[in-house]
This record gives sequence, structure tokens and C-alpha cells, in this order.
Amino acid sequence: MKRVGFTLKVRADKLDEYKKHHQQVWPEMLDALRETGWHNYSLFLRNDGVLFGYFETPHSLEQAQSLMAEKEINTKWQEFMAPFFDANARPDEMFLELEEVFHLA
Amino acid sequence: MKRVGFTLKVRADKLDEYKKHHQQVWPEMLDALRETGWHNYSLFLRNDGVLFGYFETPHSLEQAQSLMAEKEINTKWQEFMAPFFDANARPDEMFLELEEVFHLA
Repeated sequence: MKRVGFTLKVRADKLDEYKKHHQQVWPEMLDALRETGWHNYSLFLRNDGVLFGYFETPHSLEQAQSLMAEKEINTKWQEFMAPFFDANARPDEMFLELEEVFHLA
Repeated sequence: MKRVGFTLKVRADKLDEYKKHHQQVWPEMLDALRETGWHNYSLFLRNDGVLFGYFETPHSLEQAQSLMAEKEINTKWQEFMAPFFDANARPDEMFLELEEVFHLA
């Protein structure tokens, strides 16, 4: 398993709503994530909107994203989430991967 | 196990040296982390110095930090790491805990 860390920036005026939606992510979206190798996946939010994602996967971030990109439910979820981010791109196209500089099992 | 996410800011002019030291963290420091409940612990670095930490613990972040604060080797490590951060405090006193807003096992 590879450990992946990434950041993303949620609009500061929409944090509460973003959090609410993530307490009730569509079951079909969760299934799609599981099927495409997104394991032990957490999202952490700083109070200015900086979002940090962590997950474990047999793939790379790029591969795990490509597999999700083939899922119709993901297209719908990304369209639903787009207004929570400042950009024209889909949220899942703006992930900035971070370098793992330390790990202790 | 609780999942903990936190951020910290490394001096942008010292990233290479910071990374080098984290490839060879003192074995006694790693032992102290293990003994005080820091499991599956990763540090991820953004190229501007924003550091994101993730670990799993039977404790809270505060408790896990208190247990480490009792370890002499941690005092030495934090003093060694202090020049890599912009502040007067010890690095481990500047951890900003993030809120977990989503988790998929």
C-alpha cells in the first residue's frame, strides 16, 4: 500500500455546508471509492478552508483518480462539490499531492 | 484508534535539510514515539514548507504529546528541530490540530 497525502482549498464561506455534505456522502460514491482502491481515507479541514486528504492505496494518486474518473457517480459528486471550491476545474482535478518525508509504522 | 491530523510550517529555506534529518530520525526517538502511541505516523511536506502530519493513536493528540513530553530524547529532538521553524516555541508545541470531516474505512 502507498500512503498518499494531498491538499485542496475549500471556500472559507462554505465550510459548514461542506462539512455537512461530508457527513452524508452518497453510499454509491463510497462504494466507488472502495472499489477503486481508496482505503483508510480521511479528510481534515483547517478553519481557513485548507483541506488535507490522506488515504492508502495499491495505486498511485494518479491511478486512483483515473479509476474514479471512470465512475459516473464521481462525475455527479464532483459537479455537486464544485461550488465549494474557487476554480473552474472539478475539485478532483485540483488535488495537490504532497511528498511523504517521514513514516513510522 | 483515533486518527489525528495536524499542520505545522517548516522554514522554506530549510526544506532539504529538514527532509534529510527525517530520513534518519534517531532510533531512540522512533522508540519513544512507538511507546507513547504514535502509530502509522506520516509527515507530508508541501513545497512551500507547509507540513501535514497524520497518525493513529489510542490517545488524543494532547495526550500523545504529553506522553512524548516526558521523554528526554524528545526534548533533545525538539531542540534539534527548532531552527527549522519560525517561532520561539518548540516545534511540538506548535502543532495545529485539524478537524476530521470525512472518513472511509
